[in-house]
Amino acid sequence: MRLTRYFLPVLKENPAEAQIVSHRLMLRAGMIRQQAAGIYSWLPLGLRVLRRIEQIVHEEQARAGHIPVLMPTLQSADLWRESGRYEDYGEEMLRIKDRHKRDLLYGPTNEEMITDIFRGHVNSYKDLPLTLYQIQWKFRDEIRPRFGVMRGREFLMKDGYNFDIDKDAAIHAYNRHMVSYLRTYERMGLTAIPMRAASGPIGGDNTHEFLVLAETGESEVFYDSAILDLKLGERVVDYDSREECEGIVQEWTAPYARTDETHDAALFDQIPEERRKSSRGIEVGQIFYFGTKYSEPMGAVVVNDKGERVPVHMGSHGIGVSRLLGAIIEASHDDRGIIWPEGVTPFPVGIVNLKQGDIATDGACEALYNTLISKGLEPLYDDRDDRAGAKFATMDLIGLPWRITVGPRGLANGMVELTCRRTGESQEMTPEAAVARLVQIYEKH
Amino acid sequence: MRLTRYFLPVLKENPAEAQIVSHRLMLRAGMIRQQAAGIYSWLPLGLRVLRRIEQIVHEEQARAGHIPVLMPTLQSADLWRESGRYEDYGEEMLRIKDRHKRDLLYGPTNEEMITDIFRGHVNSYKDLPLTLYQIQWKFRDEIRPRFGVMRGREFLMKDGYNFDIDKDAAIHAYNRHMVSYLRTYERMGLTAIPMRAASGPIGGDNTHEFLVLAETGESEVFYDSAILDLKLGERVVDYDSREECEGIVQEWTAPYARTDETHDAALFDQIPEERRKSSRGIEVGQIFYFGTKYSEPMGAVVVNDKGERVPVHMGSHGIGVSRLLGAIIEASHDDRGIIWPEGVTPFPVGIVNLKQGDIATDGACEALYNTLISKGLEPLYDDRDDRAGAKFATMDLIGLPWRITVGPRGLANGMVELTCRRTGESQEMTPEAAVARLVQIYEKH
Repeated sequence: MRLTRYFLPVLKENPAEAQIVSHRLMLRAGMIRQQAAGIYSWLPLGLRVLRRIEQIVHEEQARAGHIPVLMPTLQSADLWRESGRYEDYGEEMLRIKDRHKRDLLYGPTNEEMITDIFRGHVNSYKDLPLTLYQIQWKFRDEIRPRFGVMRGREFLMKDGYNFDIDKDAAIHAYNRHMVSYLRTYERMGLTAIPMRAASGPIGGDNTHEFLVLAETGESEVFYDSAILDLKLGERVVDYDSREECEGIVQEWTAPYARTDETHDAALFDQIPEERRKSSRGIEVGQIFYFGTKYSEPMGAVVVNDKGERVPVHMGSHGIGVSRLLGAIIEASHDDRGIIWPEGVTPFPVGIVNLKQGDIATDGACEALYNTLISKGLEPLYDDRDDRAGAKFATMDLIGLPWRITVGPRGLANGMVELTCRRTGESQEMTPEAAVARLVQIYEKH
Repeated sequence: MRLTRYFLPVLKENPAEAQIVSHRLMLRAGMIRQQAAGIYSWLPLGLRVLRRIEQIVHEEQARAGHIPVLMPTLQSADLWRESGRYEDYGEEMLRIKDRHKRDLLYGPTNEEMITDIFRGHVNSYKDLPLTLYQIQWKFRDEIRPRFGVMRGREFLMKDGYNFDIDKDAAIHAYNRHMVSYLRTYERMGLTAIPMRAASGPIGGDNTHEFLVLAETGESEVFYDSAILDLKLGERVVDYDSREECEGIVQEWTAPYARTDETHDAALFDQIPEERRKSSRGIEVGQIFYFGTKYSEPMGAVVVNDKGERVPVHMGSHGIGVSRLLGAIIEASHDDRGIIWPEGVTPFPVGIVNLKQGDIATDGACEALYNTLISKGLEPLYDDRDDRAGAKFATMDLIGLPWRITVGPRGLANGMVELTCRRTGESQEMTPEAAVARLVQIYEKH
């Protein structure tokens, strides 16, 4: 993408309304625009990151064998009356009347609707196990929306629901989701720690939240620092294997890690002192097993292998997709701006032309631009007629992990400069070497 | 995808509520489920087609130089009070009050919000031309939603908006959109005819609708059959060239083509009688130029090259993304089910295993399955233990354009059967030849 043909409205000033760094940087980098309290437009740069995050979620869901569906944003209140949650849900549920005075609501979560889909189409244990998920907009009418996309009202969430024949099978689904989520967050460059949690309005006893450590987190967290050493890395997981998934879950849940809601000081004190940590955390996902809480009242039953009609065991599993942008920025930025991990960056690399209008420099930039596109690494090319300092400041602010700087002085020796946003280190090399290096870096993303 | 691990709830019976063939087939093929009047869930097969259509729209928008954004589904009523449309819009607008009693609405279209984004970030003619678009859910509270996704209340639409310095530049944007839409529909296997239209609540004098001919269409259309011979085909278009875009628009708008709203019997009668056609049509898109209708009241002005502040010239341009599934099926089906054009099919090919459990047949199917995936042609593999007849009926119903049938008899000679859904023609060939043929067919899609 050429910047002269793009829409990247960066702000020079710090917006007064932003209290935390991710909100401030998302506004300054021209990623979002507030349209009402807790309701945002996604400008081109923000949308690119959102789509990258969605893509990683989709790929990891597919790997775990989960099937995508898409439910509407608006739901009939009648469904929620069946589960008993319509009255219970409180003021966070946005209730709507249509022109015929029928009660609708903007879905804050979808246990009822997915259970309705299941009961309408599945009758036999032979069609289990089944996990359906979606990435769709939700609305929760927060009384005080704040912190940008971190606590918005209209927000994008991945919500998935497993249907299983019995508790053991459903616990495998729970474990499978935990493993799949660990890999999902790792690919985004995040360390997200699973912590035993309280269940809230979803229900169920088994539930873990995933928290990213950051000073601005809404929760206080207590953990054994040993958990920070765990990585899935390149490990190939057989998601059908109950043993393998359970083993990974045990590995990740053995070290103490809890939020203030479930903190147990006596247990915490048993950790060796040097590994005993407390911090703040941002919740970026949660998984639940809640058995037959919805399948019983809503009649989601299947015939089992003995010919008996039994309610299915269910769980639900969420990832805060739009919120993740905020969490990633909170965890990865410096004074100059955002530092995107390679997995989620809006563009893999930026090209800065130091002398726009100079034939040789323009030509070298164009050649680099086209070569990178042909390698599947579409760069953001700053082809504006502007000062080098302004171009560098924009690239630093928007946080592309790599920058290639092209100027007449380097080109005289056949060289360009490749700079790492995170370390600030620069290396002179030929354009071909820079491309080869980027191809190598992005191969695993 | 293996059918035993998929969620494809096909119906044996014709659903009573469906009055038109696309609605009936989408329900029978397990593509959608109604959740409330005019509000649908997208089941896995339907979602795959929806995503294919979105992908084509995105690719063609990118080719025309348009930039994606994403606006929220809910909007503040205040924006619509600025343009004067809040009171005018009528009962199709879903009006909502949040917990603080503030007026929101579920966006039926986004002229106001995009104008707000523009005025908030763009001040100079140097940043023009600019066209921003999104694919996002809309809501129109139709009094009688019907015909499935063809006239739903919650529906997915591509809406794009151009901002230009003057009328000439905006007319180029209008022409560019027309050309880009022609190519978009062609890639979906549709003949969509641009017809001069009436503007309705969007405003403006220049507007064309795109109509697909089908018996169940909501509009009566009158046209010169010469227009059916026009195709863009492989033609490479320079979307920056005003002359080239205008030339294509002239080519496509020279033959008479109008809806009943703008029909002119005297003009129509001048067409040679054998080319004079009337029919029904389904609207699948519309483009508008409306000048300064929104920019003036909402203050979307830029400084021009003389230093004067001038309101920008705008247009808006829509494609009915979810509605297109219905339109494509109306235009492409037979008694046995849907016939997907290659460009939008949910899976490029189906594999039918005639003897599940037979080691050689299972092995040949697995090998085909993996080879096709490695070629980027993920098949739907019917690996159920079911009768051949039932498997064929499912494949015909869901309309995959190609089917490979694998059975012990053919395999004895090293052969499988490749069948074309549209013509019903089958050919015996080696598995390698079948894969090569499919690779060739899908190369251009």
